[in-house]
Amino acid sequence: MRKREELRHTYGFDEVALVPGDVTINPDQTDISLSIGEHKLDIPILASAMDGVVDPKFAIELGRLGGLAVLNLDGVQARYENPDEILQAISEASAEAVTSIIQRAYKEPIKEELVARRVKEIKDAGVVCAASVTPASAKKISPIAVEAGLDILVVASTVTTARHISKSYRGLIFSELCEQMPVPVVVGNCVSYSAAMELMKAGIAGFLVGVGPGAACTTREVLGVGVPQVSATMECAAARDDYLGETGRYVTLITDGGLRTGGDICKSLASGADGVMMGSPFARTSEAPGRGCHWGMATPDMNLPRGTRIRVGVNVDLNQLLNGPTSMSDGTENLVGAIKTCMGVCGARDIKEMHSTEVVVATSIKTEGKAWQIAGLH
Amino acid sequence: MRKREELRHTYGFDEVALVPGDVTINPDQTDISLSIGEHKLDIPILASAMDGVVDPKFAIELGRLGGLAVLNLDGVQARYENPDEILQAISEASAEAVTSIIQRAYKEPIKEELVARRVKEIKDAGVVCAASVTPASAKKISPIAVEAGLDILVVASTVTTARHISKSYRGLIFSELCEQMPVPVVVGNCVSYSAAMELMKAGIAGFLVGVGPGAACTTREVLGVGVPQVSATMECAAARDDYLGETGRYVTLITDGGLRTGGDICKSLASGADGVMMGSPFARTSEAPGRGCHWGMATPDMNLPRGTRIRVGVNVDLNQLLNGPTSMSDGTENLVGAIKTCMGVCGARDIKEMHSTEVVVATSIKTEGKAWQIAGLH
Amino acid sequence: MRKREELRHTYGFDEVALVPGDVTINPDQTDISLSIGEHKLDIPILASAMDGVVDPKFAIELGRLGGLAVLNLDGVQARYENPDEILQAISEASAEAVTSIIQRAYKEPIKEELVARRVKEIKDAGVVCAASVTPASAKKISPIAVEAGLDILVVASTVTTARHISKSYRGLIFSELCEQMPVPVVVGNCVSYSAAMELMKAGIAGFLVGVGPGAACTTREVLGVGVPQVSATMECAAARDDYLGETGRYVTLITDGGLRTGGDICKSLASGADGVMMGSPFARTSEAPGRGCHWGMATPDMNLPRGTRIRVGVNVDLNQLLNGPTSMSDGTENLVGAIKTCMGVCGARDIKEMHSTEVVVATSIKTEGKAWQIAGLH
Amino acid sequence: MRKREELRHTYGFDEVALVPGDVTINPDQTDISLSIGEHKLDIPILASAMDGVVDPKFAIELGRLGGLAVLNLDGVQARYENPDEILQAISEASAEAVTSIIQRAYKEPIKEELVARRVKEIKDAGVVCAASVTPASAKKISPIAVEAGLDILVVASTVTTARHISKSYRGLIFSELCEQMPVPVVVGNCVSYSAAMELMKAGIAGFLVGVGPGAACTTREVLGVGVPQVSATMECAAARDDYLGETGRYVTLITDGGLRTGGDICKSLASGADGVMMGSPFARTSEAPGRGCHWGMATPDMNLPRGTRIRVGVNVDLNQLLNGPTSMSDGTENLVGAIKTCMGVCGARDIKEMHSTEVVVATSIKTEGKAWQIAGLH
Repeated sequence: MRKREELRHTYGFDEVALVPGDVTINPDQTDISLSIGEHKLDIPILASAMDGVVDPKFAIELGRLGGLAVLNLDGVQARYENPDEILQAISEASAEAVTSIIQRAYKEPIKEELVARRVKEIKDAGVVCAASVTPASAKKISPIAVEAGLDILVVASTVTTARHISKSYRGLIFSELCEQMPVPVVVGNCVSYSAAMELMKAGIAGFLVGVGPGAACTTREVLGVGVPQVSATMECAAARDDYLGETGRYVTLITDGGLRTGGDICKSLASGADGVMMGSPFARTSEAPGRGCHWGMATPDMNLPRGTRIRVGVNVDLNQLLNGPTSMSDGTENLVGAIKTCMGVCGARDIKEMHSTEVVVATSIKTEGKAWQIAGLH
Repeated sequence: MRKREELRHTYGFDEVALVPGDVTINPDQTDISLSIGEHKLDIPILASAMDGVVDPKFAIELGRLGGLAVLNLDGVQARYENPDEILQAISEASAEAVTSIIQRAYKEPIKEELVARRVKEIKDAGVVCAASVTPASAKKISPIAVEAGLDILVVASTVTTARHISKSYRGLIFSELCEQMPVPVVVGNCVSYSAAMELMKAGIAGFLVGVGPGAACTTREVLGVGVPQVSATMECAAARDDYLGETGRYVTLITDGGLRTGGDICKSLASGADGVMMGSPFARTSEAPGRGCHWGMATPDMNLPRGTRIRVGVNVDLNQLLNGPTSMSDGTENLVGAIKTCMGVCGARDIKEMHSTEVVVATSIKTEGKAWQIAGLH
Repeated sequence: MRKREELRHTYGFDEVALVPGDVTINPDQTDISLSIGEHKLDIPILASAMDGVVDPKFAIELGRLGGLAVLNLDGVQARYENPDEILQAISEASAEAVTSIIQRAYKEPIKEELVARRVKEIKDAGVVCAASVTPASAKKISPIAVEAGLDILVVASTVTTARHISKSYRGLIFSELCEQMPVPVVVGNCVSYSAAMELMKAGIAGFLVGVGPGAACTTREVLGVGVPQVSATMECAAARDDYLGETGRYVTLITDGGLRTGGDICKSLASGADGVMMGSPFARTSEAPGRGCHWGMATPDMNLPRGTRIRVGVNVDLNQLLNGPTSMSDGTENLVGAIKTCMGVCGARDIKEMHSTEVVVATSIKTEGKAWQIAGLH
Repeated sequence: MRKREELRHTYGFDEVALVPGDVTINPDQTDISLSIGEHKLDIPILASAMDGVVDPKFAIELGRLGGLAVLNLDGVQARYENPDEILQAISEASAEAVTSIIQRAYKEPIKEELVARRVKEIKDAGVVCAASVTPASAKKISPIAVEAGLDILVVASTVTTARHISKSYRGLIFSELCEQMPVPVVVGNCVSYSAAMELMKAGIAGFLVGVGPGAACTTREVLGVGVPQVSATMECAAARDDYLGETGRYVTLITDGGLRTGGDICKSLASGADGVMMGSPFARTSEAPGRGCHWGMATPDMNLPRGTRIRVGVNVDLNQLLNGPTSMSDGTENLVGAIKTCMGVCGARDIKEMHSTEVVVATSIKTEGKAWQIAGLH
């Protein structure tokens, strides 16, 4: 019966800016590594478990470059012997037909044999293997994937909580799952202090932060639900820090969804994230399986699709996206260079130090320059 | 003589978002029913008393689907033996001519015989019958409608208060009306705590919240008057809760006007509404009498028209609008599915629990995803 | 040496809305009269002292309809025997040539004989006659105008203060002017509490509030100076009220500039104005001398023109603009009807009661309806 | 481990406005001079050290008009015997080719002989000579420039701090540089109180404020770093004032980047700046070497280009830009007239008094007038 009180203000990437530090550091002296359980990644960037973004080949390439791709064990790789056919069909479908084509494609059942095979393909290349399941499929599929060599298990849905009430099935108990699985469990997505705290108490190794912001997601329009990423990350980082203070255990926070540029990644880290997960930027690479398209796991929903196929085109390779060089000056390429340069001007030697960078509300941030360019051009 | 103080900030649907809960619930376990007096509706959605939206046939269909349509007893159904002719003429009028055609159409007098006949048509189909009158016509028309079987009486004007000062006629006394009428009385529209409180003290069963936001309404431009719907709902919900605390009587709050999507409905409920009233979304259905057009009751005003005919087209049927399935991912269809899914992720078993969902200010809510999609498409 | 503190937020018409009252009143029972000194006007609307808006014929017409037009004694009416020739030339000039044509037109000297004749033309028609001078010309021209029968003297410049420092001429002392003039003196423009207070102490009868917002004014771009009208009016109204409390003398506050619609007028009154002054809306009438054009007195400035000729077209007559009826539903016509209707829903019997209406910040005010209309149209 | 707290709000030029004072002053009685060390400039405007803006000829012209141009000793003037060839090539390059052409042009080494010659060219004309170096090149190039007669040394990079950590080279120690150089040292850019304070303690004579806002700069998109200019200037002015209180030494604050109009300059001064530095407005003059183009020093970066060539055209001469007269009413010409007029209406006799002008948040500042003009035109 609260209400009528002052509402909390929340902020997204385009509404904030970072304040440079009092010391600057040469970019080559910054450490941008990320740890998830016992696994250490050279760069703090994960690729989303989306069928247009990650297949085993892509996961191997990104692993070799220091990042981590999450394979979707609820998607076409686990449903089709030859997923390329269906990926081709989706990419070629007309805008009118695409949702029903996607809805049909995901009626094909998941095959346990394919779950195991996809994990092995990645492991055989010698890189860290991460894959995702849904809360509903976690109990059945996780053991198969772990058996096949999985390193990191991701359990994800639009909104994930430690407690789920259902009469049709016994809800997934995360504390049981974390105990049973011999690998670190990453869970998401969540956006609030209390939900993050409950998930950490269940024993997870990391969690994904973000509801609603992704390019291929329309949860905000359809359900009204979502918290902009800067505020969601700050809330969950406060929970992560308090949990660390109480227990001494550090849980990894990954901001997931809505990130477009190097600037967005830097803002996530300054807000308290240890790393980020991106879909759209990777979908643009020549290594991605989606042929320049991507879509989320809420798109195939038969009754209430939230999201659609986004066509981003193929216009960069993975190494250039991450490491440059680039002639693009809009922040969409050389993401690693942007992180290191930003940490240099913010005086942060590593990502933990980056958490202390001041974040300010700066709505006008793009207007100033842009208005002038427009004025200048006429 | 106040002024110069800090002004109160108010918010509309596009400026807020809902924060998911700490528990999630399967959508099929949520109860979204709405009570008005002794009547219980399966779904918390009412159709506005607009001539382009509700006729007896539409009211019967919506009633069968669990909602409630309010018939306008001040409109063409009560003025014309055959209203379809005039509805056809309005839908076919040119943009230049339409306001004067509407102005002329509403000069035809209201017939008491038609008032009774329209109510009976709806009652004969076995559904709950609600109909609206204006404060000025309430005393004359209400008894006829009740006599004919009316279940719920709605008394509505742009701004309704418990006290109206006039020298030309003795103002409607709501406390007298509520005592005289053997059916629940719903009154509106109001947007402030104190106006809502006075109306409840007069004995009403429910009230409509919202001044200015509707698509067919330009009260805000013409008069400068209006409060955005999220804040208006919160103010009035605070009054409803305080009145409940003082008297033990629960008055139903219906957010009315400006709702477009499932997300807007969910935000209304989280702000404290028990249900919502919509015009435009229903005007789009093949069951609506307006042939893809709708207009408000301030449009025919001879001196100061506020609003115009809005053409929305006919592009969905009523059942699909409410229950899906849909291939639209913008929140405009499967409204019931959206409410149930949203309540699931917010951990709300019924609408009263939904009132506790946190509402945050999130201006950027649509920008994040949209900007990226636009960037991605070029 | 202040700074770094929290900045004060200010608001314009498009950022606020009015909250309806707890009582409603029939519009025909509202009193919207305005007093300036001993003169009482039936409607609280003044026409700006702009050469495209007011000539003697226009002043007579507006006076007969209950309002008040201010004749510009620094403009073409006081410089040319036959001002229509020059008004015609300005209206027909190309966009490129117009600023220099206006600059040239205002080099013609002011003729004392014409000053007196224009005032007499208005007085002979039996209406209240108001006319404006600049601070620099006040001492010379005011006595001639008063001698000719002037009722209200307006002394106006972009920014007016009670103290002006100059070495080239002895600044105008408002307290001396007010003592010498046998008619009420109205002064402007100002936007702050302290400037308004000093002007009132000089003995003025009324003041104009607003710097920067007018359509024909670009002071904000050129100088960075200006305060949005809602906040400026509230600041100055607080000064007016405090001065009343201290001295018992009520000084009339006129919000001047940037008003477009009936809603804007209502917001000014709710913010504390006793009346409003408008230019653009009157320039659109067939009675205005500008042939559908208007421009401000900073436009002819040879070095630093602030403003330009605005072409608004001729599309309404004065009576319809003020009293309707209208088929426009955007608030630009039937301004008197809008004021009376708004005061009715706000429960204000007269303008002083209207000062108590709550003003809320409501940025989204137009978005809700508009977004839906746009969505509905495709 | 802070976070989750209320974020600080920051503001840019388009979000604020200035409140007129209680006294007005004739513009011809205002003093707008600016001091840097022992040098006094008649007008408080510097031209940015950009290759498209400043060459020796331009510096001489601006110096004669009372301002100060900063020559870029890291650019084409110090790399090429005949820089006009390369400037011509850059101005003629296609949009696709221009970044790589600029990258190639800046691979040509800097010649010490040219550094000395450019400085002498300016000094020989009898005007104050200022030139810029980067922190990395400061130790090598500064002595040569000073030897050749340099009056003011500017050391600038995107973000400058008093302490820089690097393992590849010993960072520039500003306190050492200030002691060794017999001329005033101006350093930038910075945006925070503490960074400004540390730089002042190193002994600098002035500093440049602004990270991210310039037209030719995309630091905000690429790195997420930046503070809008009004807030950055206020923060740094607070440091300047506190440092003055502690030490009695006054350090000159120059707001640098993102300024378009006279209004922007006035807002900078009211926020606490002693002067401003502009690039784009000067690039438009016929005296500028860039042939209507300009670009920043981050554009040639091989790995992470931030910024691009901006084409503004050649459409004004330097004297008219500064002193008018003008027929432009958008604030882009007669900058000196705008400063003096603004100081007049704000009642400020000199720039120090201008620091006391009230700055208010006024987002709507341009909307009011513009919306009306648009409405008026149809």
